[in-house]
Amino acid sequence: MAGFFTDSSRVTSTGEGIHHAEIPPGWDIGGNVNGGFLFATAARAMADVVGRPDPVSVTAHFLSPGRAGEAEILTEPVRIGRRFATARATMATAGRPTIAMLGTFGTLEPDPDSPLMVRGAPPELPAPEQCAHLAPTAPGSPPFIGRVEVRFHPDDAGFFRGTPTGTPSMRGWFRLADNEPIDTIGLLLAVDAFPPTVFNSGLLGWAPTLELTAHVRARPAPGWLACRFDTRFITNGMLEVDGEVWDSTDTLVAQSRQIALLPRGD
Amino acid sequence: MAGFFTDSSRVTSTGEGIHHAEIPPGWDIGGNVNGGFLFATAARAMADVVGRPDPVSVTAHFLSPGRAGEAEILTEPVRIGRRFATARATMATAGRPTIAMLGTFGTLEPDPDSPLMVRGAPPELPAPEQCAHLAPTAPGSPPFIGRVEVRFHPDDAGFFRGTPTGTPSMRGWFRLADNEPIDTIGLLLAVDAFPPTVFNSGLLGWAPTLELTAHVRARPAPGWLACRFDTRFITNGMLEVDGEVWDSTDTLVAQSRQIALLPRGD
Repeated sequence: MAGFFTDSSRVTSTGEGIHHAEIPPGWDIGGNVNGGFLFATAARAMADVVGRPDPVSVTAHFLSPGRAGEAEILTEPVRIGRRFATARATMATAGRPTIAMLGTFGTLEPDPDSPLMVRGAPPELPAPEQCAHLAPTAPGSPPFIGRVEVRFHPDDAGFFRGTPTGTPSMRGWFRLADNEPIDTIGLLLAVDAFPPTVFNSGLLGWAPTLELTAHVRARPAPGWLACRFDTRFITNGMLEVDGEVWDSTDTLVAQSRQIALLPRGD
Repeated sequence: MAGFFTDSSRVTSTGEGIHHAEIPPGWDIGGNVNGGFLFATAARAMADVVGRPDPVSVTAHFLSPGRAGEAEILTEPVRIGRRFATARATMATAGRPTIAMLGTFGTLEPDPDSPLMVRGAPPELPAPEQCAHLAPTAPGSPPFIGRVEVRFHPDDAGFFRGTPTGTPSMRGWFRLADNEPIDTIGLLLAVDAFPPTVFNSGLLGWAPTLELTAHVRARPAPGWLACRFDTRFITNGMLEVDGEVWDSTDTLVAQSRQIALLPRGD
């Protein structure tokens, strides 16, 4: 028993360029499987096909809502290089194309001799027990809330209580349920596990993701991940969400950006 | 004669899912065709295949250096929706796979009724004639310099003279040569037309792009585009470059992010 996330996102090769997954219930929000979970599961099949463990840069375009149950991932290697390997994939759930992906994978070993420049820092967060969270047992709580542990910066948690901050940002801690160890594929779940930033803008409703790209910069150390998601531009019915994920050693382990559609008021 | 960029990046359908392009000399730097030019040209074929003019979100993974001459773009529609359409593509130059792409296209009409939130502003730049530029006729100047007009913020131009600022940023103006009108496909050129930000970090050498994603947020008004490119994290041999492109009406027209490899000192 590797842990619920690892078990849930397991893929099995069932033929040349075909993987199957069985998405259990519990990863959905309002009946739709969380986008980051789909992203991570399809990336596992891509990593398997190219024989490299770490997603250095992976992009998903979301085609239709994902459903629990049997999923099929079709993969195709594009280029297998010495240091990096690129593949594309399409994942179908409930027999329907769900996400299209393109990604480059490698082996992320720390390189202490590499130049280092860090113009940024992890978000300043109170200890996890001082942060706000949604209880998985609360009425109306989506099943997904029980699969990951998200602890919100108290200043960004107003949206829970109907008092959004007015700033489309979310800062908080993330880990898998039961503190299951997380690998670089798990970071693809982390970058899409927080509620939409627009929940804090006062614009109600879900913001469906058109496209999500993650860059994994390092393998995460064990422990809580400190995360920050910010939207700077809501224009023409679209918004971007920029994410940073920092591990317990204050190392930047992933960056993400997505483009999403504004919730429609009507 | 639509202009040199439009003519150079023209694509012609020569069969189901096949486009040809003829990349003229003059778009290269050190013999390699500029990545943004390849990105824009392949996106033209994708836009043609899906029947939507504007690249809302496009990602390219760079497989090998691009060469001038005949290019072939293989495209495949992934999903044609009501509002957006998604396609993938692979472009070969000199008979060799050069970039793999995945993108979603739409029709970007301004929507004055849409909520607007802008947490940011164009870079503050002196007038173009007060900015620094590389003369296309200077000795050693790459041919690409004559194809686009880039005017650097004087504070970011130290790298010309061997005095990098120490901050991996580049701010400046961009337009096509001869002030050729630019469309949303042209913005894909703009997001990769500046020198690598690391030229200002003191790390010498080219920083090859692994992957580049652009989000086009609006159609650009005529005139100079104000651009900003920043690198915040150089870690483990990799760096990201975040770009913003603003038009002459101070509207954000594109965002970009790429992940690139650090120049090797050896």
